[in-house]
Amino acid sequence: MYVVGECLNGMYMDVRQAINDRDKSAIQERARNQVEAGASALDLNVGPVGGDPAEAMLWLAETTREVTDVPLWIDTPKWSVVEQVLPKFAGPKAINSTKADEDALEKYVALAVQNDAGLIALTMDAKGVPNDAERRVELGATILTKAMEGGLPIDKLYIDPIILPVNVAPDQPMNVLAALQQLVMFSDPPPHLVLGLSNVSQKCNHTTLINRIYLVMAMTMGLDSAIMDPLDKELMDVLITTELLQAKAIYCDGFLEAYQMRSQVAKA
Amino acid sequence: MYVVGECLNGMYMDVRQAINDRDKSAIQERARNQVEAGASALDLNVGPVGGDPAEAMLWLAETTREVTDVPLWIDTPKWSVVEQVLPKFAGPKAINSTKADEDALEKYVALAVQNDAGLIALTMDAKGVPNDAERRVELGATILTKAMEGGLPIDKLYIDPIILPVNVAPDQPMNVLAALQQLVMFSDPPPHLVLGLSNVSQKCNHTTLINRIYLVMAMTMGLDSAIMDPLDKELMDVLITTELLQAKAIYCDGFLEAYQMRSQVAKA
Repeated sequence: MYVVGECLNGMYMDVRQAINDRDKSAIQERARNQVEAGASALDLNVGPVGGDPAEAMLWLAETTREVTDVPLWIDTPKWSVVEQVLPKFAGPKAINSTKADEDALEKYVALAVQNDAGLIALTMDAKGVPNDAERRVELGATILTKAMEGGLPIDKLYIDPIILPVNVAPDQPMNVLAALQQLVMFSDPPPHLVLGLSNVSQKCNHTTLINRIYLVMAMTMGLDSAIMDPLDKELMDVLITTELLQAKAIYCDGFLEAYQMRSQVAKA
Repeated sequence: MYVVGECLNGMYMDVRQAINDRDKSAIQERARNQVEAGASALDLNVGPVGGDPAEAMLWLAETTREVTDVPLWIDTPKWSVVEQVLPKFAGPKAINSTKADEDALEKYVALAVQNDAGLIALTMDAKGVPNDAERRVELGATILTKAMEGGLPIDKLYIDPIILPVNVAPDQPMNVLAALQQLVMFSDPPPHLVLGLSNVSQKCNHTTLINRIYLVMAMTMGLDSAIMDPLDKELMDVLITTELLQAKAIYCDGFLEAYQMRSQVAKA
Protein backbone atom coordinates (compact mmCIF):
# COMPACT_ATOMS: atom_id res chain seq x y z
CA MET A 1 0.00 0.00 0.00
CA TYR A 2 1.05 3.47 -0.88
CA VAL A 3 0.19 5.62 2.12
CA VAL A 4 -0.34 9.32 1.48
CA GLY A 5 -0.27 11.24 4.75
CA GLU A 6 -3.32 13.48 5.20
CA CYS A 7 -2.14 15.49 8.19
CA LEU A 8 -0.81 18.60 6.45
CA ASN A 9 -4.25 20.02 5.81
CA GLY A 10 -5.48 23.52 6.63
CA MET A 11 -8.76 22.00 7.82
CA TYR A 12 -6.86 21.18 11.02
CA MET A 13 -6.77 24.36 13.08
CA ASP A 14 -3.15 23.96 14.19
CA VAL A 15 -1.96 23.41 10.61
CA ARG A 16 -3.95 26.41 9.41
CA GLN A 17 -2.37 28.50 12.14
CA ALA A 18 1.10 27.25 11.23
CA ILE A 19 0.53 28.12 7.57
CA ASN A 20 -0.82 31.56 8.40
CA ASP A 21 2.15 32.18 10.72
CA ARG A 22 4.61 30.63 8.24
CA ASP A 23 5.77 28.49 11.16
CA LYS A 24 8.24 26.15 9.50
CA SER A 25 9.04 23.95 12.47
CA ALA A 26 5.40 23.02 13.13
CA ILE A 27 4.93 21.98 9.50
CA GLN A 28 8.23 20.13 9.29
CA GLU A 29 7.60 18.18 12.47
CA ARG A 30 4.26 16.99 11.12
CA ALA A 31 5.89 16.05 7.81
CA ARG A 32 8.67 14.08 9.52
CA ASN A 33 6.25 12.31 11.87
CA GLN A 34 4.08 11.11 9.02
CA VAL A 35 6.99 9.79 6.97
CA GLU A 36 8.46 8.03 9.99
CA ALA A 37 5.07 6.46 10.70
CA GLY A 38 4.91 4.97 7.20
CA ALA A 39 3.73 7.64 4.74
CA SER A 40 5.17 7.14 1.23
CA ALA A 41 3.90 10.55 0.10
CA LEU A 42 2.37 13.61 1.75
CA ASP A 43 -0.83 15.37 0.76
CA LEU A 44 -0.60 19.16 1.08
CA ASN A 45 -3.80 21.15 1.39
CA VAL A 46 -3.77 24.73 2.64
CA GLY A 47 -7.50 24.73 3.33
CA PRO A 48 -9.30 28.07 3.87
CA VAL A 49 -6.08 29.97 4.54
CA GLY A 50 -5.75 33.75 4.50
CA GLY A 51 -3.97 35.62 1.68
CA ASP A 52 -2.90 34.20 -1.68
CA PRO A 53 -3.53 30.42 -1.71
CA ALA A 54 -0.84 29.81 -4.36
CA GLU A 55 1.76 31.58 -2.26
CA ALA A 56 0.67 29.62 0.83
CA MET A 57 0.80 26.32 -1.08
CA LEU A 58 4.26 27.03 -2.48
CA TRP A 59 5.52 27.92 0.99
CA LEU A 60 4.00 24.69 2.34
CA ALA A 61 5.59 22.58 -0.42
CA GLU A 62 9.03 24.17 -0.09
CA THR A 63 8.90 23.96 3.70
CA THR A 64 7.95 20.29 3.56
CA ARG A 65 10.54 19.54 0.89
CA GLU A 66 13.32 20.75 3.19
CA VAL A 67 12.79 17.74 5.44
CA THR A 68 11.67 14.92 3.14
CA ASP A 69 12.18 13.57 -0.37
CA VAL A 70 8.82 11.80 -0.64
CA PRO A 71 6.33 12.88 -3.33
CA LEU A 72 4.20 15.88 -2.37
CA TRP A 73 0.59 15.84 -3.54
CA ILE A 74 -0.64 19.36 -4.27
CA ASP A 75 -4.23 19.10 -3.06
CA THR A 76 -6.38 21.93 -4.39
CA PRO A 77 -9.48 22.27 -6.54
CA LYS A 78 -8.00 25.44 -8.07
CA TRP A 79 -6.27 25.16 -11.44
CA SER A 80 -4.52 28.50 -10.91
CA VAL A 81 -2.91 27.27 -7.69
CA VAL A 82 -1.60 24.01 -9.06
CA GLU A 83 -0.49 25.59 -12.33
CA GLN A 84 1.59 28.19 -10.47
CA VAL A 85 2.96 26.00 -7.71
CA LEU A 86 3.78 22.71 -9.43
CA PRO A 87 6.79 23.85 -11.49
CA LYS A 88 8.33 25.81 -8.64
CA PHE A 89 9.34 23.26 -6.02
CA ALA A 90 11.86 20.46 -6.29
CA GLY A 91 11.48 16.70 -6.08
CA PRO A 92 8.70 14.23 -6.86
CA LYS A 93 5.16 15.62 -6.95
CA ALA A 94 1.58 14.92 -7.90
CA ILE A 95 -1.57 16.88 -8.68
CA ASN A 96 -4.57 16.17 -6.43
CA SER A 97 -6.91 16.37 -8.29
CA THR A 98 -8.80 16.73 -11.53
CA LYS A 99 -12.37 15.80 -12.36
CA ALA A 100 -13.11 13.50 -15.29
CA ASP A 101 -14.51 16.06 -17.73
CA GLU A 102 -12.59 15.64 -20.99
CA ASP A 103 -11.34 19.20 -21.28
CA ALA A 104 -10.20 19.27 -17.65
CA LEU A 105 -8.43 15.95 -18.13
CA GLU A 106 -6.55 17.19 -21.20
CA LYS A 107 -5.33 20.26 -19.34
CA TYR A 108 -4.33 18.43 -16.16
CA VAL A 109 -2.68 15.52 -17.98
CA ALA A 110 -0.57 17.98 -19.97
CA LEU A 111 0.46 19.80 -16.77
CA ALA A 112 1.38 16.50 -15.10
CA VAL A 113 3.43 15.34 -18.09
CA GLN A 114 5.25 18.69 -18.37
CA ASN A 115 6.25 18.46 -14.71
CA ASP A 116 6.91 14.71 -14.55
CA ALA A 117 4.17 14.65 -11.90
CA GLY A 118 1.60 12.12 -10.80
CA LEU A 119 -2.08 12.85 -11.38
CA ILE A 120 -5.03 11.97 -9.17
CA ALA A 121 -8.30 11.95 -11.11
CA LEU A 122 -11.72 11.75 -9.51
CA THR A 123 -14.51 9.70 -11.09
CA MET A 124 -16.85 12.68 -11.09
CA ASP A 125 -17.73 15.24 -13.73
CA ALA A 126 -19.67 18.48 -14.00
CA LYS A 127 -22.81 16.57 -12.91
CA GLY A 128 -21.22 15.63 -9.58
CA VAL A 129 -20.37 12.36 -7.87
CA PRO A 130 -22.12 9.34 -9.46
CA ASN A 131 -24.61 7.41 -7.35
CA ASP A 132 -23.65 4.05 -8.78
CA ALA A 133 -20.63 1.91 -9.55
CA GLU A 134 -21.21 1.82 -13.32
CA ARG A 135 -20.83 5.56 -13.87
CA ARG A 136 -17.69 5.57 -11.74
CA VAL A 137 -16.26 2.87 -13.99
CA GLU A 138 -17.25 4.76 -17.16
CA LEU A 139 -15.52 7.88 -15.88
CA GLY A 140 -12.53 5.75 -14.90
CA ALA A 141 -12.33 4.60 -18.51
CA THR A 142 -12.43 8.22 -19.70
CA ILE A 143 -9.64 9.08 -17.27
CA LEU A 144 -7.46 6.18 -18.38
CA THR A 145 -8.00 6.95 -22.07
CA LYS A 146 -7.17 10.62 -21.69
CA ALA A 147 -4.10 9.85 -19.61
CA MET A 148 -2.78 7.43 -22.24
CA GLU A 149 -3.57 9.84 -25.08
CA GLY A 150 -1.75 12.60 -23.24
CA GLY A 151 1.36 10.49 -22.63
CA LEU A 152 1.06 10.08 -18.86
CA PRO A 153 2.73 6.81 -17.75
CA ILE A 154 0.17 4.52 -16.14
CA ASP A 155 2.15 4.30 -12.92
CA LYS A 156 1.72 8.06 -12.51
CA LEU A 157 -2.07 7.85 -12.65
CA TYR A 158 -4.26 7.49 -9.54
CA ILE A 159 -7.99 6.99 -10.07
CA ASP A 160 -10.12 8.02 -7.07
CA PRO A 161 -13.68 6.62 -7.14
CA ILE A 162 -14.69 9.00 -4.31
CA ILE A 163 -16.03 7.67 -1.06
CA LEU A 164 -18.79 9.63 0.67
CA PRO A 165 -19.71 9.51 4.38
CA VAL A 166 -21.67 6.38 5.29
CA ASN A 167 -24.03 8.41 7.49
CA VAL A 168 -25.37 10.43 4.55
CA ALA A 169 -24.83 7.99 1.65
CA PRO A 170 -25.30 4.45 3.02
CA ASP A 171 -25.06 2.68 -0.36
CA GLN A 172 -21.93 4.48 -1.52
CA PRO A 173 -19.35 2.37 0.32
CA MET A 174 -20.57 -0.74 -1.52
CA ASN A 175 -20.78 1.14 -4.83
CA VAL A 176 -17.19 2.26 -4.46
CA LEU A 177 -16.10 -1.32 -3.70
CA ALA A 178 -17.90 -2.54 -6.82
CA ALA A 179 -16.19 0.20 -8.84
CA LEU A 180 -12.75 -0.71 -7.44
CA GLN A 181 -13.33 -4.35 -8.38
CA GLN A 182 -13.87 -3.34 -12.00
CA LEU A 183 -11.29 -0.54 -12.20
CA VAL A 184 -8.52 -2.89 -11.05
CA MET A 185 -9.15 -5.00 -14.15
CA PHE A 186 -8.74 -2.08 -16.58
CA SER A 187 -5.14 -2.75 -17.49
CA ASP A 188 -2.20 -4.89 -16.50
CA PRO A 189 -0.59 -3.49 -14.42
CA PRO A 190 -3.74 -1.70 -13.26
CA PRO A 191 -3.87 2.05 -12.68
CA HIS A 192 -3.33 3.00 -9.06
CA LEU A 193 -6.58 3.23 -7.13
CA VAL A 194 -6.79 5.72 -4.29
CA LEU A 195 -9.36 6.96 -1.80
CA GLY A 196 -9.52 9.81 0.67
CA LEU A 197 -10.23 7.27 3.38
CA SER A 198 -11.37 9.52 6.22
CA ASN A 199 -14.29 10.77 4.12
CA VAL A 200 -16.16 7.51 4.77
CA SER A 201 -16.58 8.35 8.45
CA GLN A 202 -16.94 12.13 8.33
CA LYS A 203 -19.16 13.35 11.18
CA CYS A 204 -19.83 9.78 12.27
CA ASN A 205 -19.32 8.24 15.68
CA HIS A 206 -16.54 5.64 15.82
CA THR A 207 -14.65 7.34 12.97
CA THR A 208 -11.40 5.43 13.48
CA LEU A 209 -13.21 2.08 13.61
CA ILE A 210 -15.11 2.86 10.40
CA ASN A 211 -11.89 4.02 8.68
CA ARG A 212 -10.09 0.82 9.66
CA ILE A 213 -12.83 -1.48 8.43
CA TYR A 214 -13.33 0.35 5.16
CA LEU A 215 -9.60 0.33 4.48
CA VAL A 216 -9.59 -3.47 4.71
CA MET A 217 -12.67 -3.78 2.50
CA ALA A 218 -11.24 -1.46 -0.14
CA MET A 219 -7.80 -3.13 -0.10
CA THR A 220 -9.55 -6.47 -0.54
CA MET A 221 -11.15 -5.08 -3.71
CA GLY A 222 -7.90 -3.73 -5.14
CA LEU A 223 -7.21 -0.35 -3.55
CA ASP A 224 -3.43 0.15 -3.56
CA SER A 225 -3.18 3.66 -2.19
CA ALA A 226 -4.98 5.77 0.40
CA ILE A 227 -4.87 9.32 1.63
CA MET A 228 -5.07 8.59 5.34
CA ASP A 229 -3.65 9.26 8.77
CA PRO A 230 -0.36 7.37 9.18
CA LEU A 231 -0.15 8.61 12.77
CA ASP A 232 -3.15 6.40 13.63
CA LYS A 233 -1.10 3.40 14.71
CA GLU A 234 -4.08 1.08 14.88
CA LEU A 235 -4.94 2.00 11.29
CA MET A 236 -1.38 1.28 10.20
CA ASP A 237 -1.46 -2.08 12.02
CA VAL A 238 -4.66 -2.90 10.16
CA LEU A 239 -3.02 -2.01 6.86
CA ILE A 240 0.05 -4.14 7.63
CA THR A 241 -2.09 -7.11 8.67
CA THR A 242 -4.21 -6.85 5.53
CA GLU A 243 -1.06 -6.95 3.41
CA LEU A 244 0.13 -9.99 5.39
CA LEU A 245 -3.14 -11.78 4.63
CA GLN A 246 -2.81 -10.74 0.97
CA ALA A 247 0.56 -12.57 0.95
CA LYS A 248 2.36 -9.30 0.24
CA ALA A 249 4.57 -10.04 3.23
CA ILE A 250 5.62 -13.28 4.87
CA TYR A 251 4.52 -13.94 8.42
CA CYS A 252 7.05 -13.59 11.21
CA ASP A 253 6.22 -13.05 14.87
CA GLY A 254 7.27 -9.41 14.56
CA PHE A 255 5.44 -8.74 11.29
CA LEU A 256 4.11 -5.36 12.48
CA GLU A 257 7.56 -4.09 13.39
CA ALA A 258 9.13 -5.67 10.30
CA TYR A 259 6.87 -3.60 8.05
CA GLN A 260 8.01 -0.37 9.61
CA MET A 261 11.64 -1.43 9.28
CA ARG A 262 11.21 -2.32 5.60
CA SER A 263 9.46 0.99 5.08
CA GLN A 264 12.35 2.94 6.61
CA VAL A 265 14.94 0.99 4.62
CA ALA A 266 13.02 1.64 1.39
CA LYS A 267 13.15 5.37 2.03
CA ALA A 268 16.80 5.49 3.12
CA MET B 1 -23.72 -12.39 9.58
CA TYR B 2 -24.59 -15.63 11.22
CA VAL B 3 -22.26 -15.93 14.20
CA VAL B 4 -21.57 -19.45 15.48
CA GLY B 5 -20.02 -19.32 18.93
CA GLU B 6 -16.81 -21.33 19.17
CA CYS B 7 -16.33 -21.27 22.92
CA LEU B 8 -17.86 -24.64 23.88
CA ASN B 9 -14.86 -26.61 22.70
CA GLY B 10 -12.95 -29.24 24.65
CA MET B 11 -9.71 -27.77 23.35
CA TYR B 12 -10.18 -25.13 26.06
CA MET B 13 -8.98 -26.70 29.31
CA ASP B 14 -11.81 -25.31 31.43
CA VAL B 15 -14.45 -26.58 29.00
CA ARG B 16 -12.79 -30.00 28.88
CA GLN B 17 -12.78 -30.07 32.65
CA ALA B 18 -16.44 -29.08 32.78
CA ILE B 19 -17.36 -31.84 30.32
CA ASN B 20 -15.35 -34.45 32.20
CA ASP B 21 -16.95 -33.36 35.49
CA ARG B 22 -20.40 -33.07 33.87
CA ASP B 23 -20.51 -29.57 35.37
CA LYS B 24 -23.73 -28.18 33.93
CA SER B 25 -23.50 -24.64 35.29
CA ALA B 26 -20.06 -23.98 33.75
CA ILE B 27 -21.30 -25.12 30.33
CA GLN B 28 -24.58 -23.26 30.58
CA GLU B 29 -22.95 -20.02 31.62
CA ARG B 30 -20.66 -20.15 28.58
CA ALA B 31 -23.64 -20.93 26.33
CA ARG B 32 -25.66 -18.00 27.70
CA ASN B 33 -22.75 -15.59 27.48
CA GLN B 34 -22.15 -16.38 23.82
CA VAL B 35 -25.80 -15.99 22.85
CA GLU B 36 -26.07 -12.73 24.76
CA ALA B 37 -22.94 -11.46 23.00
CA GLY B 38 -24.46 -12.10 19.57
CA ALA B 39 -24.08 -15.78 18.68
CA SER B 40 -26.92 -17.06 16.46
CA ALA B 41 -25.80 -20.67 16.90
CA LEU B 42 -23.33 -22.55 19.10
CA ASP B 43 -20.66 -24.96 17.96
CA LEU B 44 -20.24 -27.95 20.32
CA ASN B 45 -16.97 -29.85 20.24
CA VAL B 46 -16.00 -32.18 23.08
CA GLY B 47 -12.36 -32.29 22.01
CA PRO B 48 -10.09 -35.01 23.43
CA VAL B 49 -12.45 -35.82 26.28
CA GLY B 50 -12.26 -38.98 28.42
CA GLY B 51 -14.82 -41.81 28.10
CA ASP B 52 -17.37 -42.27 25.32
CA PRO B 53 -17.32 -39.20 23.01
CA ALA B 54 -20.92 -39.76 21.88
CA GLU B 55 -22.15 -39.79 25.45
CA ALA B 56 -20.13 -36.64 26.21
CA MET B 57 -21.48 -34.88 23.12
CA LEU B 58 -25.07 -35.80 23.93
CA TRP B 59 -24.64 -34.52 27.48
CA LEU B 60 -23.11 -31.30 26.11
CA ALA B 61 -25.98 -30.82 23.64
CA GLU B 62 -28.71 -31.53 26.18
CA THR B 63 -27.04 -29.33 28.78
CA THR B 64 -26.72 -26.46 26.33
CA ARG B 65 -30.27 -26.94 25.07
CA GLU B 66 -31.64 -26.39 28.58
CA VAL B 67 -30.62 -22.72 28.40
CA THR B 68 -30.95 -21.73 24.74
CA ASP B 69 -33.06 -22.40 21.67
CA VAL B 70 -30.37 -21.50 19.11
CA PRO B 71 -29.13 -24.14 16.65
CA LEU B 72 -26.43 -26.43 18.05
CA TRP B 73 -23.68 -27.46 15.65
CA ILE B 74 -22.42 -30.96 16.46
CA ASP B 75 -18.73 -30.55 15.70
CA THR B 76 -16.99 -33.90 15.34
CA PRO B 77 -15.06 -35.72 12.64
CA LYS B 78 -16.62 -39.00 13.82
CA TRP B 79 -19.63 -40.34 11.93
CA SER B 80 -20.53 -42.62 14.82
CA VAL B 81 -20.79 -39.66 17.20
CA VAL B 82 -22.98 -37.49 15.03
CA GLU B 83 -25.15 -40.44 13.94
CA GLN B 84 -25.87 -41.35 17.54
CA VAL B 85 -26.25 -37.87 19.00
CA LEU B 86 -28.12 -35.94 16.33
CA PRO B 87 -31.55 -37.62 16.70
CA LYS B 88 -31.48 -37.57 20.48
CA PHE B 89 -31.62 -33.89 21.46
CA ALA B 90 -34.37 -31.36 20.84
CA GLY B 91 -34.43 -28.16 18.83
CA PRO B 92 -32.56 -26.85 15.79
CA LYS B 93 -29.26 -28.52 14.96
CA ALA B 94 -26.52 -28.90 12.38
CA ILE B 95 -23.75 -31.35 11.53
CA ASN B 96 -20.23 -29.94 11.53
CA SER B 97 -18.88 -31.37 9.29
CA THR B 98 -18.49 -33.67 6.32
CA LYS B 99 -15.77 -33.79 3.69
CA ALA B 100 -16.64 -33.50 0.00
CA ASP B 101 -16.06 -37.14 -1.03
CA GLU B 102 -19.23 -38.26 -2.82
CA ASP B 103 -20.00 -41.25 -0.60
CA ALA B 104 -19.48 -39.22 2.57
CA LEU B 105 -21.71 -36.47 1.22
CA GLU B 106 -24.52 -38.91 0.42
CA LYS B 107 -24.43 -40.33 3.92
CA TYR B 108 -24.23 -36.97 5.69
CA VAL B 109 -26.86 -35.30 3.52
CA ALA B 110 -29.27 -38.17 4.26
CA LEU B 111 -28.60 -37.85 8.00
CA ALA B 112 -29.16 -34.08 7.87
CA VAL B 113 -32.42 -34.45 5.92
CA GLN B 114 -33.72 -37.17 8.27
CA ASN B 115 -33.12 -34.90 11.26
CA ASP B 116 -34.13 -31.59 9.65
CA ALA B 117 -30.56 -30.47 10.40
CA GLY B 118 -28.12 -28.09 8.78
CA LEU B 119 -24.97 -29.49 7.18
CA ILE B 120 -21.52 -27.94 7.10
CA ALA B 121 -19.39 -29.37 4.28
CA LEU B 122 -15.66 -28.79 3.91
CA THR B 123 -14.11 -28.27 0.48
CA MET B 124 -11.63 -31.08 1.06
CA ASP B 125 -11.60 -34.74 0.11
CA ALA B 126 -9.54 -37.83 0.81
CA LYS B 127 -6.53 -36.05 -0.73
CA GLY B 128 -6.68 -33.30 1.90
CA VAL B 129 -7.15 -29.53 1.75
CA PRO B 130 -6.65 -28.07 -1.75
CA ASN B 131 -3.78 -25.66 -2.27
CA ASP B 132 -5.69 -23.48 -4.71
CA ALA B 133 -9.01 -21.72 -5.13
CA GLU B 134 -10.08 -23.72 -8.19
CA ARG B 135 -10.17 -27.08 -6.45
CA ARG B 136 -12.08 -25.58 -3.55
CA VAL B 137 -14.66 -24.32 -6.03
CA GLU B 138 -14.87 -27.72 -7.76
CA LEU B 139 -15.46 -29.43 -4.44
CA GLY B 140 -18.00 -26.74 -3.59
CA ALA B 141 -19.86 -27.69 -6.76
CA THR B 142 -19.80 -31.36 -5.75
CA ILE B 143 -21.17 -30.43 -2.33
CA LEU B 144 -23.97 -28.31 -3.76
CA THR B 145 -24.94 -31.00 -6.29
CA LYS B 146 -25.03 -33.76 -3.71
CA ALA B 147 -27.02 -31.61 -1.30
CA MET B 148 -29.63 -30.85 -3.95
CA GLU B 149 -29.81 -34.48 -5.08
CA GLY B 150 -30.29 -35.55 -1.48
CA GLY B 151 -33.10 -33.07 -0.87
CA LEU B 152 -31.30 -30.76 1.55
CA PRO B 153 -32.76 -27.22 1.34
CA ILE B 154 -30.09 -24.77 0.22
CA ASP B 155 -30.54 -22.62 3.30
CA LYS B 156 -29.49 -25.61 5.43
CA LEU B 157 -26.16 -25.97 3.60
CA TYR B 158 -22.94 -24.30 4.77
CA ILE B 159 -19.88 -24.64 2.54
CA ASP B 160 -16.58 -24.16 4.38
CA PRO B 161 -13.60 -23.48 2.08
CA ILE B 162 -11.18 -24.11 4.99
CA ILE B 163 -8.79 -21.44 6.12
CA LEU B 164 -5.33 -22.51 7.26
CA PRO B 165 -2.97 -20.55 9.52
CA VAL B 166 -1.23 -17.70 7.70
CA ASN B 167 2.08 -18.52 9.39
CA VAL B 168 2.32 -21.95 7.74
CA ALA B 169 0.30 -21.39 4.56
CA PRO B 170 0.83 -17.76 3.47
CA ASP B 171 -1.05 -18.05 0.15
CA GLN B 172 -4.10 -19.77 1.58
CA PRO B 173 -5.93 -16.68 2.90
CA MET B 174 -6.02 -15.22 -0.62
CA ASN B 175 -6.98 -18.58 -2.15
CA VAL B 176 -9.89 -18.86 0.25
CA LEU B 177 -11.03 -15.31 -0.64
CA ALA B 178 -10.89 -16.19 -4.34
CA ALA B 179 -12.90 -19.35 -3.64
CA LEU B 180 -15.51 -17.39 -1.65
CA GLN B 181 -15.88 -14.92 -4.51
CA GLN B 182 -16.79 -17.77 -6.86
CA LEU B 183 -18.82 -19.89 -4.42
CA VAL B 184 -21.11 -16.95 -3.65
CA MET B 185 -22.16 -16.92 -7.32
CA PHE B 186 -23.16 -20.62 -7.38
CA SER B 187 -26.85 -20.08 -6.88
CA ASP B 188 -29.35 -17.37 -6.04
CA PRO B 189 -29.73 -17.25 -3.12
CA PRO B 190 -26.18 -18.53 -2.62
CA PRO B 191 -25.32 -21.36 -0.26
CA HIS B 192 -24.16 -20.18 3.13
CA LEU B 193 -20.40 -19.74 3.28
CA VAL B 194 -18.70 -20.35 6.60
CA LEU B 195 -15.17 -20.38 8.01
CA GLY B 196 -13.63 -21.47 11.28
CA LEU B 197 -12.17 -17.98 11.61
CA SER B 198 -9.66 -18.50 14.40
CA ASN B 199 -7.75 -21.04 12.29
CA VAL B 200 -6.24 -18.22 10.24
CA SER B 201 -4.20 -17.02 13.22
CA GLN B 202 -3.43 -20.29 14.97
CA LYS B 203 -0.08 -20.09 16.79
CA CYS B 204 0.52 -16.59 15.40
CA ASN B 205 1.30 -13.42 17.28
CA HIS B 206 -1.49 -10.82 17.19
CA THR B 207 -4.16 -13.51 16.80
CA THR B 208 -7.10 -11.23 17.54
CA LEU B 209 -5.86 -8.58 15.09
CA ILE B 210 -5.40 -11.20 12.35
CA ASN B 211 -8.86 -12.65 13.05
CA ARG B 212 -10.48 -9.23 12.84
CA ILE B 213 -8.84 -8.31 9.56
CA TYR B 214 -9.54 -11.65 7.92
CA LEU B 215 -13.18 -11.52 8.99
CA VAL B 216 -13.59 -8.20 7.14
CA MET B 217 -11.78 -9.52 4.05
CA ALA B 218 -13.89 -12.69 3.95
CA MET B 219 -17.17 -10.81 4.55
CA THR B 220 -16.22 -8.48 1.71
CA MET B 221 -15.95 -11.54 -0.55
CA GLY B 222 -19.29 -13.02 0.48
CA LEU B 223 -18.80 -14.91 3.74
CA ASP B 224 -22.13 -14.86 5.60
CA SER B 225 -21.32 -17.03 8.58
CA ALA B 226 -18.33 -17.64 10.84
CA ILE B 227 -17.46 -19.95 13.69
CA MET B 228 -15.81 -17.39 15.93
CA ASP B 229 -15.54 -15.95 19.41
CA PRO B 230 -18.58 -13.73 20.07
CA LEU B 231 -17.08 -12.82 23.46
CA ASP B 232 -14.32 -10.90 21.65
CA LYS B 233 -16.11 -7.54 21.72
CA GLU B 234 -13.66 -5.89 19.35
CA LEU B 235 -14.27 -8.69 16.85
CA MET B 236 -18.02 -8.21 17.15
CA ASP B 237 -17.62 -4.43 16.68
CA VAL B 238 -15.63 -5.14 13.52
CA LEU B 239 -18.38 -7.43 12.26
CA ILE B 240 -21.09 -4.85 12.99
CA THR B 241 -19.12 -2.08 11.28
CA THR B 242 -18.50 -4.25 8.22
CA GLU B 243 -22.23 -4.87 7.93
CA LEU B 244 -22.86 -1.13 8.27
CA LEU B 245 -20.48 -0.46 5.38
CA GLN B 246 -22.18 -3.22 3.39
CA ALA B 247 -25.45 -1.28 3.82
CA LYS B 248 -26.94 -4.16 5.79
CA ALA B 249 -27.76 -1.66 8.52
CA ILE B 250 -28.43 2.06 8.45
CA TYR B 251 -26.03 4.36 10.25
CA CYS B 252 -27.07 5.86 13.53
CA ASP B 253 -24.72 7.26 16.16
CA GLY B 254 -25.33 4.18 18.31
CA PHE B 255 -24.97 1.64 15.50
CA LEU B 256 -22.85 -0.72 17.61
CA GLU B 257 -25.40 -0.86 20.42
CA ALA B 258 -28.32 -0.97 17.96
CA TYR B 259 -26.98 -4.21 16.46
CA GLN B 260 -26.90 -5.93 19.82
CA MET B 261 -30.43 -4.75 20.57
CA ARG B 262 -31.73 -6.02 17.21
CA SER B 263 -29.95 -9.29 17.83
CA GLN B 264 -31.64 -9.74 21.22
CA VAL B 265 -35.05 -8.83 19.83
CA ALA B 266 -34.63 -11.33 16.97
CA LYS B 267 -33.99 -14.12 19.47
CA ALA B 268 -36.79 -13.15 21.87
